[in-house]
Formats: sequence, C-alpha cells, structure tokens
Amino acid sequence: MLAGEIVPLTPTRIPASMRALRKVGAAPGLILDDVAVPALGPSDVLIRVRRAGICGTDQHIYAWDTWAQRRVKPPLIVGHEFMGTVVATGPAARGIAVGDRVSAEGHISCGICLLCRTGEAHICEHVEIIGVDTDGAFATFIRMPDVNVWKLDPSIPDEWAAVFDPLGNAVHTVMAAGVSTRSVVITGVGSIGLMAIPVARAAGAASVYAIDVNPAKLELASRVGADATFLASDPNLVDEMLRRTNGDGADVLLEMSGSGAAIDIGLAMVRNGGRAALLGIPPDDVNIKLAERIIFKGLTVLGINGRKMFETWYQTEALVRSGRVDLAPIITHVLPLAAFEESFDLMRSGKAAKIVLDLEHEERR
Amino acid sequence: MLAGEIVPLTPTRIPASMRALRKVGAAPGLILDDVAVPALGPSDVLIRVRRAGICGTDQHIYAWDTWAQRRVKPPLIVGHEFMGTVVATGPAARGIAVGDRVSAEGHISCGICLLCRTGEAHICEHVEIIGVDTDGAFATFIRMPDVNVWKLDPSIPDEWAAVFDPLGNAVHTVMAAGVSTRSVVITGVGSIGLMAIPVARAAGAASVYAIDVNPAKLELASRVGADATFLASDPNLVDEMLRRTNGDGADVLLEMSGSGAAIDIGLAMVRNGGRAALLGIPPDDVNIKLAERIIFKGLTVLGINGRKMFETWYQTEALVRSGRVDLAPIITHVLPLAAFEESFDLMRSGKAAKIVLDLEHEERR
Amino acid sequence: MLAGEIVPLTPTRIPASMRALRKVGAAPGLILDDVAVPALGPSDVLIRVRRAGICGTDQHIYAWDTWAQRRVKPPLIVGHEFMGTVVATGPAARGIAVGDRVSAEGHISCGICLLCRTGEAHICEHVEIIGVDTDGAFATFIRMPDVNVWKLDPSIPDEWAAVFDPLGNAVHTVMAAGVSTRSVVITGVGSIGLMAIPVARAAGAASVYAIDVNPAKLELASRVGADATFLASDPNLVDEMLRRTNGDGADVLLEMSGSGAAIDIGLAMVRNGGRAALLGIPPDDVNIKLAERIIFKGLTVLGINGRKMFETWYQTEALVRSGRVDLAPIITHVLPLAAFEESFDLMRSGKAAKIVLDLEHEERR
Amino acid sequence: MLAGEIVPLTPTRIPASMRALRKVGAAPGLILDDVAVPALGPSDVLIRVRRAGICGTDQHIYAWDTWAQRRVKPPLIVGHEFMGTVVATGPAARGIAVGDRVSAEGHISCGICLLCRTGEAHICEHVEIIGVDTDGAFATFIRMPDVNVWKLDPSIPDEWAAVFDPLGNAVHTVMAAGVSTRSVVITGVGSIGLMAIPVARAAGAASVYAIDVNPAKLELASRVGADATFLASDPNLVDEMLRRTNGDGADVLLEMSGSGAAIDIGLAMVRNGGRAALLGIPPDDVNIKLAERIIFKGLTVLGINGRKMFETWYQTEALVRSGRVDLAPIITHVLPLAAFEESFDLMRSGKAAKIVLDLEHEERR
Repeated sequence: MLAGEIVPLTPTRIPASMRALRKVGAAPGLILDDVAVPALGPSDVLIRVRRAGICGTDQHIYAWDTWAQRRVKPPLIVGHEFMGTVVATGPAARGIAVGDRVSAEGHISCGICLLCRTGEAHICEHVEIIGVDTDGAFATFIRMPDVNVWKLDPSIPDEWAAVFDPLGNAVHTVMAAGVSTRSVVITGVGSIGLMAIPVARAAGAASVYAIDVNPAKLELASRVGADATFLASDPNLVDEMLRRTNGDGADVLLEMSGSGAAIDIGLAMVRNGGRAALLGIPPDDVNIKLAERIIFKGLTVLGINGRKMFETWYQTEALVRSGRVDLAPIITHVLPLAAFEESFDLMRSGKAAKIVLDLEHEERR
Repeated sequence: MLAGEIVPLTPTRIPASMRALRKVGAAPGLILDDVAVPALGPSDVLIRVRRAGICGTDQHIYAWDTWAQRRVKPPLIVGHEFMGTVVATGPAARGIAVGDRVSAEGHISCGICLLCRTGEAHICEHVEIIGVDTDGAFATFIRMPDVNVWKLDPSIPDEWAAVFDPLGNAVHTVMAAGVSTRSVVITGVGSIGLMAIPVARAAGAASVYAIDVNPAKLELASRVGADATFLASDPNLVDEMLRRTNGDGADVLLEMSGSGAAIDIGLAMVRNGGRAALLGIPPDDVNIKLAERIIFKGLTVLGINGRKMFETWYQTEALVRSGRVDLAPIITHVLPLAAFEESFDLMRSGKAAKIVLDLEHEERR
Repeated sequence: MLAGEIVPLTPTRIPASMRALRKVGAAPGLILDDVAVPALGPSDVLIRVRRAGICGTDQHIYAWDTWAQRRVKPPLIVGHEFMGTVVATGPAARGIAVGDRVSAEGHISCGICLLCRTGEAHICEHVEIIGVDTDGAFATFIRMPDVNVWKLDPSIPDEWAAVFDPLGNAVHTVMAAGVSTRSVVITGVGSIGLMAIPVARAAGAASVYAIDVNPAKLELASRVGADATFLASDPNLVDEMLRRTNGDGADVLLEMSGSGAAIDIGLAMVRNGGRAALLGIPPDDVNIKLAERIIFKGLTVLGINGRKMFETWYQTEALVRSGRVDLAPIITHVLPLAAFEESFDLMRSGKAAKIVLDLEHEERR
Repeated sequence: MLAGEIVPLTPTRIPASMRALRKVGAAPGLILDDVAVPALGPSDVLIRVRRAGICGTDQHIYAWDTWAQRRVKPPLIVGHEFMGTVVATGPAARGIAVGDRVSAEGHISCGICLLCRTGEAHICEHVEIIGVDTDGAFATFIRMPDVNVWKLDPSIPDEWAAVFDPLGNAVHTVMAAGVSTRSVVITGVGSIGLMAIPVARAAGAASVYAIDVNPAKLELASRVGADATFLASDPNLVDEMLRRTNGDGADVLLEMSGSGAAIDIGLAMVRNGGRAALLGIPPDDVNIKLAERIIFKGLTVLGINGRKMFETWYQTEALVRSGRVDLAPIITHVLPLAAFEESFDLMRSGKAAKIVLDLEHEERR
C-alpha cells in the first residue's frame, strides 16, 4: 500500500554516527560528541548540515541559566538555524528530493490544533523547537519533517541561508508591523535587530532609527542602513524622535531588546494610532504605563513569535533575491564547528553580531 | 462675504442664563448653579440638553481624586453623555438645523493634526473633552462644534440616545476587536462592560462570557445576554474558560475594568493568536507577563480610546436600529438633575448601572 | 519504521463492494451501481457515508452540460457534500479515529504550492474536488485524506452536518465580506444564498435584503430572516435599496446568482467604499460597467472560492453551535439514495431548496 | 462673533483680474483669458499658482470628447494639479497662513456624507473636482477650502510638488494594493503608471514589471526602475510573467491603462489569492472572464479613486522625502503657460510623459 521507500540511504553517504554539539547534563557548557545519525519517520527527510548560526538561545543553553534549566531536558543536540543538503527522504515525504539545498523552519508544529489548521502554525499550541525541545542543527545531520523544509534559491549564499531563521524573525516582525512609507524605531540591535534594518528599508520604510546600549552595535546599525542611531542612555531620546517625526512620534516600533526600559522608551516614541511589534523576550514581568503608553494613544501592540509558515519564508526569499537586503556586514564571523568555544566566547564579548558555524570544513577558511 | 447669520436666536427660547452642575473649586462635590448660556462661534450649534448620562469620570471629578486634581481646572460644567434639541446654529454651521434631535461626540478634536487628517480624530493629539477640559452637558444648554453633532434616528428613545457616548465606547471596543463568530470574554461589567454584551452578540459573537467582582453586576450581565458569568475570585476561572473553548482559550478579550489583576486573568484566557481590546483605564502602571501572555502567544493588543468619528456612531445607530441591542435593563435609573446628589450616591453604592439625568422635567417621572 | 497499520479493517464492517451513484459515460444521467470500496493510502481515512447533500454542481454533471463535458472524466462517483462515520484509518493518518462522526472538506489540495503553504489551500493551484475530479460522496464509503476530515460536534444534526460544504461557502462569503453592523444585499437565494441569510444575521449584519427571480425562494428567504425581499424584475429595486439605506446604498453585496444582470444590479446597490463578495459562477463572460460600478465608487470586490481550510469550518461550527443559524427550513427534503432520480427532478423543478440523500436507510423516513 | 478677517488682502499682491486657461464654449480648444480673481468664503484660502501639471483629463476637456461633453459645463478654468503660495486666507481658515508654500487636494468633498464622516472623503458622494466641476488651477490664482490645502516640505522641488495629485494617485493605488515584498505588474505606463514604478519600489515591492503598447514609455519605465518591461502585443506575455514568478503569477496588479485588453491580461497574470488595484478608467463597459479571472482565483479587486485625504498625502511626502522616488525622468517638459497649445500637442504626440506648466515665468527656462 505504501508506494515509497526511504531513498537513497546509501551507506557511503550516511554513516552510522556523526559529530554533534550537545548539552549532556544539567550544567554549563556543551561538548562536541559522536552520536548516532537520527532515524527517519515516513514523512521525514535527513539533511547534511553545512552551515549553522549561533543564536542567543544557544548561549542561554550553554550558560545553563534559569530559563534553560526550566526548559531544556539533556541530553540534547543544540542549534536551530542552519542550511544543508538533503541526503535521504522518508517514503511519504513530499516536495523535497535528495540533493536539494535547503534550510528549515525549526518550529515543529502539531498540524492538528486550531492554530495549525488556520494558517497560524507558528503559534501552534504544541510546538516543539529543534535545538531546544528536540535534537538540533549543530550536528553533521539533522532529521526534519518534510513540511518544515525550505528549498533554497541558488542565488542565496550558504551563510545567509544558514540564518534564515533569525532573518525570518526580523521579516515577520517588520511585516506584521507594516512599515511601508512609515517611520520605524528599532529598540535593540542585536543580530535580529540589525537584520531588521535592511529588511525594514527593503520592505518600504521611509526612515529607520536604531536604539541600543552598545555603541559598536549602533555603528553597525548605521552601516546596514539606519538613518540615525541613539544610545539608550541619551536623555533627549524621546524629544529627538519627536523632532524627527514632525512632533507626532514614530509610526512603528520594532522592539527587539526584551528590556523593560527599552519597551517603555519605545512605546513613548510611537505616535497615537501607531503600531508596536514586540519580538524581544523580557526575562521578567514588565511594568507598563498601560493607560498613557497604549490605551489613550490607541496603539496596536503585536506579540511576535517565530516566523509565519511559510508566508514569512516566501517574503524573506523575495527580499533577499531583490538584492536589497545585505547580510554581509551582520555575519561578522564564520568559524568551524570545532571552534565552538571560541564562538561562544565571542558572542559573550559583544564583539560579534552573527556567528555562523561551518560544519563542512574542518579548518578555518 | 459671510452669507449666514445665527438662526434663530429667538429670545423666547434661549434665555440669558441656565442651570448647570459645576465644579467650582478644588474640593470634592458639585453645585447646581446659574450661569450664562454659552455664546456660539461661527461653526457651533447650541443644544437644549434633555437627557444626560452619569459616567465614572463624573464620579472622579465629583470626588476630586488624584486624577481629577491633575486634569480638571475649575470652574467647569461637568457631564459628557447627553442628547437634546438644537436651538441655534452659527452662520457657518453645516448639516444641522434648529429643531434637530441630536446627541454629540464629546471629543473635540483639532481638525488639523496627522490623526485628524487621516480619519483618526478620536485620538487627536490636541483633543479636548467636554465636561473634563471644557464646559459639559449637565446644563440646560451646551455649545458644540457642528462636526461633533449626531442627528438621531426617530426610533431611538431619549434615554438611550443620552448614552450613545459610553455605548459608542462599547461598540468601538467590540468592532476593533472583531467578534464575528468568535468567543468573547469581557472583564469588568460596569455600565460599558454591560453594554458590550448585547453589542457583541448583535455584532456576531458566538459566545460572550462576563467576569466581575460584583455578583449583582454579573446577574445583570446574564440578563442582557452573557452566556456565562464568573466571579473574578473564582480560582478555576481560567480552566473553566479553557474547558468552554475546546482547550484553546477565548478568541477575544474585551478589557473594561482597568484592573491589573483582571488584565492578567483576561490575557491568560485568550488563545494563541487572539485579540485583546483594552478600554478600562488602569490608574497605575500594570505589571504584565509580557513574554508569556502576549509575545509567545502572538497576541494582538489594542488600546481603545473614545469612539471613531464617526464610523462608531454609524455602527452604534445600525446596532440599535436593528433591534438587537436592548439598553433598558442597563439604564437602571432616570432622575431629575436636581437629584444629582442622590444619583452620585447611587453610583457610589454600586446599586446602579447607568443613571440618566432628566434635564427637561423638574419632577421625577 | 512505520509504526502504524490500517485499523480496524474488520471484514464485517467493510465489504468489498459498495453502492455508488456514478457518471459512467459521456451522456446525461447517473446510474446507481456496485463498485469496489476504495483502498486507503497511508494518510487516508475511510468514511461510511450517512447523509449527502445534492448541489447544483451535481445537476450540471447529471445533465452533462458544456461545463461538465469539459471538466468531468467518467467514470466518476458524484457528490461532495456529506457526513458519516470513520470506519478505517491509514497507518499515518493523524487526528482522526475509527468511530469519529465527521464531515470533510471536498477540496483536496496539493499541500506544497505557495497557496497551500501560506494558509490559502482553498485556492490551491492544483486542487482536486471530490465528486468532480475524483470519486465522491454519493456512495456507501468514501476515502478522504486525514487533513480534510472535520470532526463534528455532537450537537450538530446529521442533515445539517451533511451540508457543511455549501454552508461553508456561505460562511466564507459572509466572513470575507465582513458584515458586522452592516447592511447586506444578497443577489440569488438558491440554497447557498438562503443559508447566507441566517449566517449573515448571526455574524452581525444589521439588515439583510434578498433578491431573486423566484418568488418561492424569496418567501423562504423571509422565513429564514431576510428583512425584506425583492423580485429581480422590480424596476424600482435600486431606488428602494437606496431609500432603505439613507440614500447611501448597501454596505455589502453577497453575489450568489452568477447572473450578469444580478451582478450589475447588485453592484449598483452597493455604496461608495462598499464591499462585494462574488460566489456565484457566471457561465460566460460578464459585461461590467467597471468605471461607474467599481472604480469611481472605490469598491472592494472579492472573488470567493470554496471554504478557508479550516478557518471557515471553525466559524461554521461556532455559528451553528451558537444556535443562531437554523437550517431546518432550507433542507426541504431528505430522501433515500435510491430516490436519486426523484431528487434530481425536484431540484430541476425549483421546488426544493436543499435536498439531503440518506445513505443509511433503504426506506423513506 | 467672528474673530477673524481676511488677511492680508493687500492690493499690491492681489490684482482684480488674472490670466486663466479656460473652456469657454461647447467646442474643442481652450483659450488663455483674463478673468476676475475668485472671492473667498470664510474658510477658503487664495493661492498664487506657480506650477501646474497637465493631466489626461485636461486633454479630454481640450478635445471636448464625449466624456467632457457630458461632464463639463463651460465656462470653466481647467487644471487640477498644482503648487503655489498662499496669498490670502478667509477669516475662519485654519492651519494655513499667508506665505505658505502649498499644493492642494483637488477633490472638494461635502464634509457631511457617510464617506466624509468615516475617513473616506476621497469617495464622497457629492465630490466636486477643481478644473472639472469648478474653476481650476491653470490660472494665476485659485481659491481652495482650507481643509484641502497641503503645506509642502521645503525639500520638495516645485515641479514635483505640482504633480502631487497624480503622484498621489500612484501612491494610493500602490498602498491600497499592498506591495511590500511582493511582485508587481503595472499595465499602462502613462505618467501615473510611470510614477507608480519608483513608488512601488520605495514602498517595498520586490520586483516591478511594466506593460504598455508604447516602446518609448517602456524605455522610460526601465529608467525609473522597472525590473523588466513588455509590449502588450507580446504573445508570450503571460507565460513570461509566470516564468518570472515561479509559475505562480504576480502577487499584485496595478491597472493604469483603462484598456479592456490590458485588464484581461493583467488579471490573467495575477496569482491565486492576489490583489488587483484598478485606477485606469475604461471609457466603455468591460467584458470580464469573471469566473476564471477573479472568482476561482480568489482575487481581491480594488477600485481606486483619487487619493485618501490625507493619508495618501502623508505617504507621498514620506516617500519623496526618503529620497527613493525620483520624478525627474518623468517630468519631461516644463513650459510657460503661454505655450499651452504646444504642450497639448506634445501630450497628444505621446512624446511627453508629464508636462508641467510654469505660471511664474513669462519666458521659457
């Protein structure tokens, strides 16, 4: 009855074991290890990982902070941003073939809840995230459901394709907020905030302003297209933004810091009737001047999670292919997987924006 | 050059002075007083007030609480919900004639700011509210700009017309949230929350649930159409709502209490991807579980202020004329203006829902 | 590797052959026949059909008109509106169990095109429709992909569940147009147009007007909730609608006739800035006064196809469960499958609104 | 009672008569004439016209075609696209002062109909258009209601400001369609279609394709940013567009030709679920394959009229100020008013895109 079979699971290409960066116990740190290559379910595909991005989430898991202790169940292969090549497909897998160059959506949704059945699988009630809830991408191979896989346009460089996950966060936030012809403030220019700058411009923003506590990040923000940048400590911040927006305030806030102070300043800068899209995750409760900042102003506030499946992916590809989004200045480092300790050190130092791990080459390029 | 003149300013109809309920000094209480009838500007109309509703805002001004002390500058005629008859029109007033039976939008917008020029005058940057910033409606006559006046359909009873302002708040909140075919939770069933129940049902809600601390209000909520009501202190509240919504949570929250605790419970009840419209004004900052309640769930949160000019008014009239919104159980008292002390006592007691003052008859009906 | 197996394919319940109403050659008519029970793919389910609705499409296929000759490839089991009980599930089928009482979405979408991947599977580029492109529901059993199956709430009567497909057309049209607080004109009250009347009212329409050429259908339209009905031949039709809408025109048009003349009259009745949702399929090109009817008026015109998967199904269930949509007057006949010739005669006569076939009972009830 | 007076109507600046290009009788042609300077109503302003654009509408009036004969009542000063300087203000005029450099919205709306009161004044039921229904802008002075006047940012060149009316048509069409990250087809690249190209790109379009019958216009389309251009006669047009859009079709159609053939080709190119904004005015009824082109595809079709007051004006200014919309290649000629015959000859020849008349200088620059 089942027409298909797993193809082509040729022994030469798929070994029994693989390298994987793992959390093996309830303590800080990760280890580079040999583990079994994952087996495929009927609709799964097996991907040879070639590049993978390091995310702030990976740092939390490395550091084994409170959030990680609550959420992560070792042992676990870490990593959720990646690209690679399909090397095997389950018998019922559709739309994907061996040899396809792919990235993948890391939110594995249940497919049968209200959200999954109404085009909102990105906020599925039962979502599992690779590298957090199930084995992830810092490994030679990763297993993914066919529906999660995204075939890459040949024009997209490997390193860029590896970070379609965070780039997609930026695109989802920008598109949900709606920036066309509008003035946009971004609070927090970590790697996603930085990506949001060229994304917002390419998506039609008339002006983009960036705010952060880190002058180096603001310098990078200018390089990727911010019209002006501001230190969060600037006491004249709100006045300056009003001055630049005819006294009205900015049309749109993209909140990408997760900082309560930034959220307050950001909301203060948005004009009456404006829109605020919140992507940054505050670790604690946030004290909000709800009446003054949101209700009287008639604001629309959007909680943003993940990427729309797969509207955001189509939008992301369209933006990158249009040539108007340049990630080169944001991908500050490409390092071999073996240099993971150095990579996490760099992340902690604040000197890197986005680091991409190369799982294809043993040596540094 | 100016063709018009003020018509018909007949001395028999418009006396030099009038009765008015006023805040005359920086202290609790109001006094019923004689003051001059207001003069008209070129585009103004003069309205003989016949019925006027008492709002929570009026209670704040009566009590002279912190908010009132900051906002209100005595002397001031109080009151902003009303209906009456036009008795004079300025020479440039358009669309309104003497004799018209009218209500009016109490937000006087500047007409020239970004918001006013883009169909969002309800959140005008320079708005003045009658009965708060300028003289209001608890008086024999009130002056209004022509553009603020709403001609009433003959089928609408006087007492209902008098509360089109708070009814419009309910309609604006319901329509902004979008309730058609959806499950709706209302937190806080004061008079606007109560009005929101039949409004939501008439606007297409599939189910409406009401939450409050006051059992009497919940009893009234059931009478006007709530499918179920819950005391805010019920420890199984969130579970019960999940049970009633197939485990997903409610599609829509209408927050009408201004209570931080209610906001938290309300947001907890809304499903992933749901919508929350916030009308209640929290007196203080609110502590919000932003990540858990809004961001991860992909919620849309709408700050609601006033009524859309005049989309909300058209919607309000359509709903009332359709016969599917019954305000009779909510307007619990109609009292003469002279009984204002009794009226405010009733409001404070929690025994009244909406009290309408009759400015036309000296005696109680 | 595949954990599941087909369950429970018990011989007692699933015979080798079944009764089926089929188009067997390129000529008018259908025959009631014995054919093999369909085999299941890994993600399919087998449903014992209990009730099935007859649609206008089925009439076209019966009559073998030009459209049918172009589209249908005999042999084919006809019928696409149905409900029944799941009797077997493929090994990879998810979310559905044997014994479930179900209806199903008859548009089988490809799952991998742009539309399918962005929440718009109802307009999938490669859609196949049961009873038109693949074997349908006028049979003892039907095979459906698991993702197409809709579990029914126990409160929904069998006959109503059998027509969730056309009811869903009505709901999709009403919800796309957006009727909350609005005045609505429906041109064409065949069975879907009739269903659209209580649906529009339940979804919040302030008023609903029905237009048709058939007085009997208009009489039925009044019974199910139309505020007023009009013969399409009435020369004062547009004036009368303007009179009832304060001279502005109706807010919304739901076009359900497919007639060029009705489309012109309907568009003429819609107010500037209004919305028109077109569900009726004109057999030929339509001559449209594009400048006068659509462009100058700033209209929004929506092409409507099928039902949103599965937003429309959730909305449909919510509306039916709310108790505010009564299909009883619209389902004018329930007849055994063997009476199919009589059923099609009734359809042609215009005396029936919706006919439901009973595939469970040999005799008439 | 009226505080204001007309300021500063100094005799040295405002003469009794002025030059004006007029239609004086029911025949082809226009004459340059001396007429009285218009008197001001209380809320009007008087503007010294400095630059004015020639529109296709002006050509229709010049040629006295069927449309013009039906609509225009001579005598009439023609012209509706302009910029200039405010030289006098009525006593009740607000937000505008003598000396302001301005353009103006040429749709004079009634202010009191449903549309005017709900933020849709651009489709006011009683609109009058300057240069068509009332005296227009090809004159030394023009009278405008204060609410119609738009203060210009100093950075905007005079010639660009003079064509904010057609530029606004392009912006309104682009923003209504929603082009951010999308592929866009424009049918018809007359001056508005040409403007729509940089507008769409600046508003976030990922790709823009232009179609026309005139190779010279297509050449200009490429210069202002079209990714590819096509002759309407190209038999492979639809296939080529499918090839460029992954077989799906374009996301968005901007129809700016008014040609029935272009509308059919354009709709054929749009993908399922796409959007089509229609600005071009077909002179006759249009035969549309409604089922195939709109209904089955689930298209959204938007009739576009004028410019949103004043959302479109804010958007237009934001786009121009962002530096991403360059009108220089589109404004092919600037000629003195006295050269109006030559200007209309140029328009007819198809050799000009947009011609701006200079009413400030007697001689050519």
